[in-house]
Amino acid sequence: MQILILGAAGMVGRKLVERLVQERQLGGQEITRLILHDVVEPERPEASFPIDTLTSDFSMPGEAEPLVATRPDVIFHLAAIVSGEAEADLEKGYRINLDGTRLLFDAIRHVGDGYRPRLVFTSSIAVFGAPFPEAIGDEFFLTPLTSYGTQKAIGELLLADYSRRGFLDGIGIRLPTICVRPGKPNKAASGFFSSIIREPLNGQEAILPVPMDVRHSHASPRSAVNFLIHAATLDLSRVGPRRNLTMPSVSVTVAEQIDALRRIGGERCVARIRHEIDPNIVRFVEGWPRRFDARRAESLGFRAEGSFDEIISIYIEDELGGALPDQ
Amino acid sequence: MQILILGAAGMVGRKLVERLVQERQLGGQEITRLILHDVVEPERPEASFPIDTLTSDFSMPGEAEPLVATRPDVIFHLAAIVSGEAEADLEKGYRINLDGTRLLFDAIRHVGDGYRPRLVFTSSIAVFGAPFPEAIGDEFFLTPLTSYGTQKAIGELLLADYSRRGFLDGIGIRLPTICVRPGKPNKAASGFFSSIIREPLNGQEAILPVPMDVRHSHASPRSAVNFLIHAATLDLSRVGPRRNLTMPSVSVTVAEQIDALRRIGGERCVARIRHEIDPNIVRFVEGWPRRFDARRAESLGFRAEGSFDEIISIYIEDELGGALPDQ
Repeated sequence: MQILILGAAGMVGRKLVERLVQERQLGGQEITRLILHDVVEPERPEASFPIDTLTSDFSMPGEAEPLVATRPDVIFHLAAIVSGEAEADLEKGYRINLDGTRLLFDAIRHVGDGYRPRLVFTSSIAVFGAPFPEAIGDEFFLTPLTSYGTQKAIGELLLADYSRRGFLDGIGIRLPTICVRPGKPNKAASGFFSSIIREPLNGQEAILPVPMDVRHSHASPRSAVNFLIHAATLDLSRVGPRRNLTMPSVSVTVAEQIDALRRIGGERCVARIRHEIDPNIVRFVEGWPRRFDARRAESLGFRAEGSFDEIISIYIEDELGGALPDQ
Repeated sequence: MQILILGAAGMVGRKLVERLVQERQLGGQEITRLILHDVVEPERPEASFPIDTLTSDFSMPGEAEPLVATRPDVIFHLAAIVSGEAEADLEKGYRINLDGTRLLFDAIRHVGDGYRPRLVFTSSIAVFGAPFPEAIGDEFFLTPLTSYGTQKAIGELLLADYSRRGFLDGIGIRLPTICVRPGKPNKAASGFFSSIIREPLNGQEAILPVPMDVRHSHASPRSAVNFLIHAATLDLSRVGPRRNLTMPSVSVTVAEQIDALRRIGGERCVARIRHEIDPNIVRFVEGWPRRFDARRAESLGFRAEGSFDEIISIYIEDELGGALPDQ
């Protein structure tokens, strides 16, 4: 089995590669080759099978074709300009997130000759726009309030149409906020959801810019990889033409996040959170979904964590070697 | 006020032009110039103001710019490859319905300098895909089952995003099946909904290819023009960021259509309908929505007919000079 990953240099991409290298198989089929693509050179880990790396801007005409020339059986399309950048640079966002996706799908279509790979597309809960019901169900409409969300919603529509027409066997998975993100704080407005856990666990101070009653939905990076692998191996005849699914997540308030941190890291961790309201971030967060009723994905076997405690524990296992650092 | 109409040579486009020529104003503002565009030369009626006609393929790079060079205040974007053709010719459908729409929106964006026209986009109930609830509400999700429906749904998303970003002041209106269509039978699978009324009223035989209990939603061509004009003049600050609306319609079974025909044209009209089931058309129709709960459009003042009798009466008024032909 040959696997192509677009966006392989990103956080989720790297974790997916790591898992595939470890497991050496996908859905019971031995991996014979892994092709890693990104706009910057992806890392190439040691593996029991050959790994190729490719670097290009896949939104440029002619650049998508080489990616599918060897007819990969499974394609993970994780490549995207993120929310903030797509909002700041309209043309770049549409070029990468819309044109790039379409050129990829068309490159697959042009292979022809019965080629019909499984294509796993990472969409986002940014396809939804306020006002929301208390829990967003599987049939709630997509009215994004960002260009990024618009581009992801268009990707979902293209995926469904190209699947229906038999050019690819696509599934779109709407990832919730991934938490606890490893590494340094990033500039995403949602970054604090990870920061207020990650920094205190590492002995550092973090800023909480929103009120304690803000509710949001999370899944761990490990769950994100689980979703991708499940999506790649699921029997899609059970899914039918509605190919885009909201993934399960853990819906908690910031206060509940902090309670979980207290249970796992103790009061000294909680004491490292400084509460400093940032009206800009508060305004952003008000436009975000609070809770999902992801029954369809759950009935298809997608699973997230059961609690925020579990999300923190996974961070400690996967990123801190299983124990809190001495502080 | 300067008005641009794309798709001016189509049935709804021609009726819109006729109305504007008659009324000489739109929303209380005098019309100073009308620009009619289509891929074939649109008719240019006599009018109290100058009418320009332009013929081009607006999906070709550089062709959308001249359309907006004179900064029209209102743009009606009715141009589209219809359902059957978009399904038969994937590339043409995506080129006209997606690329054309996007190039038009980008041409508007590139005018800059505060230019922000009202843009009325005709979408379609083809954005919905079975299975449906008994009545499709305003927050039901878009899962089209045709490439045409996919392209219209993408147009809606682009319209909302470009409106949100302030490049245009857009509104998308999802037209129900337009009935009674004037003229000859066309090849659309939905053509029989008009044929079974129009042909009998004109002394001709018509074929009914589906069972009598098939339910469908209709509005007259006059209502379609009313929708467009209302959309062009409505205060969109009342609409907010959710810019795409399902239009009101009359939901009736075929049996109810025929009862209305009997009341208006008598039994001799009904006798001209031959019932000949066509399994292909039956299969198509099973995938179509039956009824809409278009509360949002209604609350914004959009109005369709109150009954199918009224729809037939409008056909007789607008197309047959107000009386049934001698038969």
